[in-house]
Amino acid sequence: MTAIHNPQRSKKAGLGPDSLVYVGKKNTSEVQIQLIDYNADYERSEKIHHVEDCAAFCDSKSVTWIDIAGIHDSKVIEAIGNQFHIHPLVLEDIMNSTSRPKVEFFDDYMFITMKMLETDATTGEVQKEQLSLIVSAGFVIMFQEQTGDDFDPIRERIKTAKGKVRNKDGYYLAYLILDIVVDKYIATNESLLSQIEEVEAIILKQATEQTLHRILGLRKDLIDIKHGIDPMKEAINTISLEMDTEISKYYRDLYDHIIYESENLSMYREMIVNLMDLYHSTLSVKMNQVMKVLTIMTTIFVPLTFIVGVYGMNFDYMPELHEPNGYFFVMGGMALVVIGMLFYFRKKRWL
Amino acid sequence: MTAIHNPQRSKKAGLGPDSLVYVGKKNTSEVQIQLIDYNADYERSEKIHHVEDCAAFCDSKSVTWIDIAGIHDSKVIEAIGNQFHIHPLVLEDIMNSTSRPKVEFFDDYMFITMKMLETDATTGEVQKEQLSLIVSAGFVIMFQEQTGDDFDPIRERIKTAKGKVRNKDGYYLAYLILDIVVDKYIATNESLLSQIEEVEAIILKQATEQTLHRILGLRKDLIDIKHGIDPMKEAINTISLEMDTEISKYYRDLYDHIIYESENLSMYREMIVNLMDLYHSTLSVKMNQVMKVLTIMTTIFVPLTFIVGVYGMNFDYMPELHEPNGYFFVMGGMALVVIGMLFYFRKKRWL
Amino acid sequence: MTAIHNPQRSKKAGLGPDSLVYVGKKNTSEVQIQLIDYNADYERSEKIHHVEDCAAFCDSKSVTWIDIAGIHDSKVIEAIGNQFHIHPLVLEDIMNSTSRPKVEFFDDYMFITMKMLETDATTGEVQKEQLSLIVSAGFVIMFQEQTGDDFDPIRERIKTAKGKVRNKDGYYLAYLILDIVVDKYIATNESLLSQIEEVEAIILKQATEQTLHRILGLRKDLIDIKHGIDPMKEAINTISLEMDTEISKYYRDLYDHIIYESENLSMYREMIVNLMDLYHSTLSVKMNQVMKVLTIMTTIFVPLTFIVGVYGMNFDYMPELHEPNGYFFVMGGMALVVIGMLFYFRKKRWL
Amino acid sequence: MTAIHNPQRSKKAGLGPDSLVYVGKKNTSEVQIQLIDYNADYERSEKIHHVEDCAAFCDSKSVTWIDIAGIHDSKVIEAIGNQFHIHPLVLEDIMNSTSRPKVEFFDDYMFITMKMLETDATTGEVQKEQLSLIVSAGFVIMFQEQTGDDFDPIRERIKTAKGKVRNKDGYYLAYLILDIVVDKYIATNESLLSQIEEVEAIILKQATEQTLHRILGLRKDLIDIKHGIDPMKEAINTISLEMDTEISKYYRDLYDHIIYESENLSMYREMIVNLMDLYHSTLSVKMNQVMKVLTIMTTIFVPLTFIVGVYGMNFDYMPELHEPNGYFFVMGGMALVVIGMLFYFRKKRWL
Amino acid sequence: MTAIHNPQRSKKAGLGPDSLVYVGKKNTSEVQIQLIDYNADYERSEKIHHVEDCAAFCDSKSVTWIDIAGIHDSKVIEAIGNQFHIHPLVLEDIMNSTSRPKVEFFDDYMFITMKMLETDATTGEVQKEQLSLIVSAGFVIMFQEQTGDDFDPIRERIKTAKGKVRNKDGYYLAYLILDIVVDKYIATNESLLSQIEEVEAIILKQATEQTLHRILGLRKDLIDIKHGIDPMKEAINTISLEMDTEISKYYRDLYDHIIYESENLSMYREMIVNLMDLYHSTLSVKMNQVMKVLTIMTTIFVPLTFIVGVYGMNFDYMPELHEPNGYFFVMGGMALVVIGMLFYFRKKRWL
Repeated sequence: MTAIHNPQRSKKAGLGPDSLVYVGKKNTSEVQIQLIDYNADYERSEKIHHVEDCAAFCDSKSVTWIDIAGIHDSKVIEAIGNQFHIHPLVLEDIMNSTSRPKVEFFDDYMFITMKMLETDATTGEVQKEQLSLIVSAGFVIMFQEQTGDDFDPIRERIKTAKGKVRNKDGYYLAYLILDIVVDKYIATNESLLSQIEEVEAIILKQATEQTLHRILGLRKDLIDIKHGIDPMKEAINTISLEMDTEISKYYRDLYDHIIYESENLSMYREMIVNLMDLYHSTLSVKMNQVMKVLTIMTTIFVPLTFIVGVYGMNFDYMPELHEPNGYFFVMGGMALVVIGMLFYFRKKRWL
Repeated sequence: MTAIHNPQRSKKAGLGPDSLVYVGKKNTSEVQIQLIDYNADYERSEKIHHVEDCAAFCDSKSVTWIDIAGIHDSKVIEAIGNQFHIHPLVLEDIMNSTSRPKVEFFDDYMFITMKMLETDATTGEVQKEQLSLIVSAGFVIMFQEQTGDDFDPIRERIKTAKGKVRNKDGYYLAYLILDIVVDKYIATNESLLSQIEEVEAIILKQATEQTLHRILGLRKDLIDIKHGIDPMKEAINTISLEMDTEISKYYRDLYDHIIYESENLSMYREMIVNLMDLYHSTLSVKMNQVMKVLTIMTTIFVPLTFIVGVYGMNFDYMPELHEPNGYFFVMGGMALVVIGMLFYFRKKRWL
Repeated sequence: MTAIHNPQRSKKAGLGPDSLVYVGKKNTSEVQIQLIDYNADYERSEKIHHVEDCAAFCDSKSVTWIDIAGIHDSKVIEAIGNQFHIHPLVLEDIMNSTSRPKVEFFDDYMFITMKMLETDATTGEVQKEQLSLIVSAGFVIMFQEQTGDDFDPIRERIKTAKGKVRNKDGYYLAYLILDIVVDKYIATNESLLSQIEEVEAIILKQATEQTLHRILGLRKDLIDIKHGIDPMKEAINTISLEMDTEISKYYRDLYDHIIYESENLSMYREMIVNLMDLYHSTLSVKMNQVMKVLTIMTTIFVPLTFIVGVYGMNFDYMPELHEPNGYFFVMGGMALVVIGMLFYFRKKRWL
Repeated sequence: MTAIHNPQRSKKAGLGPDSLVYVGKKNTSEVQIQLIDYNADYERSEKIHHVEDCAAFCDSKSVTWIDIAGIHDSKVIEAIGNQFHIHPLVLEDIMNSTSRPKVEFFDDYMFITMKMLETDATTGEVQKEQLSLIVSAGFVIMFQEQTGDDFDPIRERIKTAKGKVRNKDGYYLAYLILDIVVDKYIATNESLLSQIEEVEAIILKQATEQTLHRILGLRKDLIDIKHGIDPMKEAINTISLEMDTEISKYYRDLYDHIIYESENLSMYREMIVNLMDLYHSTLSVKMNQVMKVLTIMTTIFVPLTFIVGVYGMNFDYMPELHEPNGYFFVMGGMALVVIGMLFYFRKKRWL
Repeated sequence: MTAIHNPQRSKKAGLGPDSLVYVGKKNTSEVQIQLIDYNADYERSEKIHHVEDCAAFCDSKSVTWIDIAGIHDSKVIEAIGNQFHIHPLVLEDIMNSTSRPKVEFFDDYMFITMKMLETDATTGEVQKEQLSLIVSAGFVIMFQEQTGDDFDPIRERIKTAKGKVRNKDGYYLAYLILDIVVDKYIATNESLLSQIEEVEAIILKQATEQTLHRILGLRKDLIDIKHGIDPMKEAINTISLEMDTEISKYYRDLYDHIIYESENLSMYREMIVNLMDLYHSTLSVKMNQVMKVLTIMTTIFVPLTFIVGVYGMNFDYMPELHEPNGYFFVMGGMALVVIGMLFYFRKKRWL
């Protein structure tokens, strides 16, 4: 979980609100900027090296998708801010990888920030990456924490003019991006569910202390996912209410998916509580069995040991010792004691 | 529970929102289409092989009920979509067997998707099947996951012109369908309740580790049912608010039933928590008894064993050993110890 | 609890919504109809055998109170429905003893259905009986599940013209009926409270497994009562908002009482949770004491038994055995061990 | 707790709503009436014996504060009702010491009923006393359950014309009264907090079964206080919304205090849950220690006892017995066993 | 925690609402007043000794920031009240260090009171300090409990005309102050999180009773922080709704941060519950291991001790004793018993 909570949110403290400071994991790689410009008739994609080079594309009638990978360089972010007249507080939120998912509407554009979730294939841990969008009819500026993303299908579609995307505006492009983000939430939830079922199977077979740590790990993952998904409900609902009817249907559909995933999380949460109960009950049941074995052994042998102790005493006068069959009588008596005990345990259903 | 969670909701990921892909359990059987057309004066029912054959019926003044069993064939769903001008997102929801229950209103029609619940008679597990309806005054298109359903009473009624159904429009037909779905919720809940009572009786008689698994199974069933029923509250309420007064009364009545079942689920949930408590308390009480037996045996025999050990020592000079009645005095002393112990335990209420 | 949950709510399934079917405990007794007609100046009360005989009274300017004991005869209910033009869904709710408490307003009348609660004097179990009212200014039709009720004080008052009742309309009569129903809720809650206090006293004295069952029984009773009272809050609030100011004051007052009882139930719920905690803690404390006794006995006697075992060995050469005072030295040594142990336990506060 | 819950709320059942019956603890003392009449210029205070004597004061331009100690005499209450035209339902609430705190507005006056709380200095139990106010610009009628109250500072102020009270109307006087009631809530909460901290200190030092009862007692006190304070939030908020701006500020301030106390109660509740956890964990930790001691003693001495038992056997041929140093070898071997055990326990961190 | 709860909130009880009394920790130091006056063109900062000296600055067109460190001197507070026409109830709230965080709007000014939080570096305990602001376009009066604060960066900025502050009004200055307060909340939360993670690591390594106290301490800290932060959500939201658009953006941004921290607190709360579970499970697992060791030792040696006891009996006739290899047969038999036991434990997975 350290990967998620490490960034020191407080390092800005005292710096004042209008200073742009990156908050997040240390990152020294260069910021990558890719630009895709398209309308119904044409499409063009190129790597940009200076933010100012975007200017030419933005005033045109086409839709411009500027994809910025890396939010740690305040110069780049500031240049974008100046170019597109973005409010300083928005720039601050973009550079703060710990921002809460939300949407805000400004005169010229809409600002969305959210978390992309991914389950690490090897450790099963949930990874978060911040994604911010500045959206207007004519452009979408996308800020990712790192290079490499899952939006290639959209790029492919724009290139090959598949689907409706080339005839629609920036709000539709933002919808396509959000749709993929939500699909990844679904995948993360599915991975969580399959882990829950796996752990359940393990407990039913053989629970160890390791299993407990796994359950607690799942609980942490759940909290993290919830933290990323829940604020999105409100955000996407807000968008769907602000948009006009045609595009609103699409955001409405996203909203339904995110509500569903949020409900699934509640369900998984109860399932994890179930796991804890199952784990503890399994421990209790085992403890009970151990106690029974202990009690049975003690209850059977302690009286017998006493009896043989009696006849090991060295008194001068102990008449039984001199009975010819004394030994066999005592052995027989002890056998009877054992049989009586066994009957008692059977009656108590301990055997 | 695997039966319910297996469908890989995420398999669409990256495919883009307007592509129609079936999400659910693999199904290769052919899609069945049955059409019932009726008005106050006539009724006609036939099997349809091509979606296009529906066209003739739909423009007429009668009510047309198209029942499609199988949602895995995107060609059929697409053909329906073209024929009736259904929004692509609706078609997507229909083909996704993991959609969340909801209602949506479009210009020409209302779209409802929900889960039918059934308790498997042998395993007691809850089975879910998706049911989607596209409803207008003139037609109801019904999409089920599988062939075979519980709507024969409605078909019978339409055939024999029993009740009001032949004089009413598609919204009333949709109400009749929903009424049966809700009746099945009631039956599922009743089955859950009777299982809860059965498990309670078992715990009071003889709890085993198996009982714990049953309780956890009931909890899972409850979660599943809740997941199916709870979103229906909002959906049916929305319908009752959108309809005009006459038909709204009927949907209002459905709403009351579903609220009641939802409240029952909360009650069952508390009852299941009760079961868990009862189970664990029963374990604790047993553990306590086992501990008492162990303690009583140990407390009685350990001092006695010590005493007989003393007189088993081989010291040259141990005066008691040579007392003529030493043996009997010692035996008597030990008897007194036992009696004292028993009094003590009686006082402590351990016996 | 069986008494409450047995009625098979699902037995209507598949029958269609406009068919009148009784849902509840089997009842074969004849339905009793009693009619009281009154205004400021006169009062008349008689037993009715045919529903049609009510007609004469209903058109008059007086208030007519028709009390129907028995809801299992669909013919009677249907006749009432025809006579007073009651909506079929209302008739259905009246015959369904598992309906959820609610109020509904129609053009000509108001429909209320609720549960009367009663604590069985011998078993302490909570009994539910359904009570439905159809109310207008000129008549109140009351449907009870069984004969015998607690409304005699109202009948007495009408007869003797005590209080304001003879000068008021049907809505005031309905208020008087509801007031008695709510008074019975109060009595049920008081009985629950006194049982809680009784069980608490028992636990503090001597908890047994029986006590646990009683606690769980109280929890069930609480759930049942909550299930009956909680929906009444909304229902009575709705009435008080719909009525005009004069009569509304009275319903408002009822509302205050029901809110108070609902809050009391939350309080009792916490008290029952307290009882569970107290019960379990008492078990734990006892277990702890048992463990201490066991440990003290073992810790004292096991080393001593070892020591005497040492001097019971049969080695040819064991110098201590031949010391003249060896025996007394060993006995003294063991006494010292015991005293040391006792000091240790005293320090550990186990004694 | 009996002191609080004893009054039989249900004893009115069946009596009908307009009959005035006292509900509360039996009280046979005579009702005391004290009247204070004041305006900016004069002040007069006297004991009243007949309610009718109030009449003269009430029509004057001054503010009249009638303080009635004792609500068990229906004649007095009824006389007040007639004199000031109070609604019968209000009179009923005044005489019912179990009424829920609330405020109601009538044409001529405002009615408030609430609980005064006090922590019994010796037992630490929370005592409730009902206080009802009928307030208008010209008079405040105050009904207390018993003689003796905490309002002397107000009387003093009126007498000495200290503060603003003499220049203000009855609503300000009511505010002063409520302010003292709320100050007593604060004191009750503080007493609860200090008891919580005291119990925590006890648990950390030495928890006994008594401590558990104290924790549960605190929980009960909390429930009782919550029951008294929580409905006041709504009531005082309602007043502050109904009053005009000037006086509303004062009620607003009261509202802030009561919200704060309500939040404190939630905090105390968590602290009490903390106490329970601490108590149980302390028990578990102790049990664990006891178990460890038991296990260490058993694990060390049981094998040793076995070994000495071996050499106490009476076989004719046991070669070790005749070794000259056999005894010392065995003793040394056992010492090694003990040392090995101690190492093992050290490794397991049991020592 | 005592540091936080000690101030006796009730000590005002009975004093009447318009008397100014300090509620908080005893403080005898002199109140410090510092004044900063600025506009776009000039800046001036000086120490003030008499409240009246502020008058000159306040009527000017500049923004005046009066910083009062110490709220225990009613004369100072009263003088400020007279000078700036502050409502007496506001003055009372300022002097009550236990006031609940809130905002109130008056005709001429806005009043905010809140808690500053700080984690004590050595004990890890959370310290609260009350901060109240009276804000208008032309002045900000700030009341702190103690001298020494974290607002130097703002003072620095005003002095050096860095950022926008010199061109903006008092509401912007208040925003800057609140921004630092919120930044300190973030730091407090981060400190809590790192403590949670530290305790988790400790439990996984070696839990002791001390660890439990630390968990409970974290829970207390969490409650305290929540108590300080949660009411701020509502307060800052209210401000952002009351302000005009330009400045509102800034308060909106604060609101987002505080919502996020409040959600983080919920997350930490779950993590602390996780810790408790982990702690208790670790205890259970250990107890289980201890029990297993005990049971294994007892189960192996108790039967063996019985066997050797048998052959230590002194019967005259015990044939086995005289077998030449009897001793070796018995030893071999006992070895077989041990091996059997070990197999059994292996099968039970206790070894």
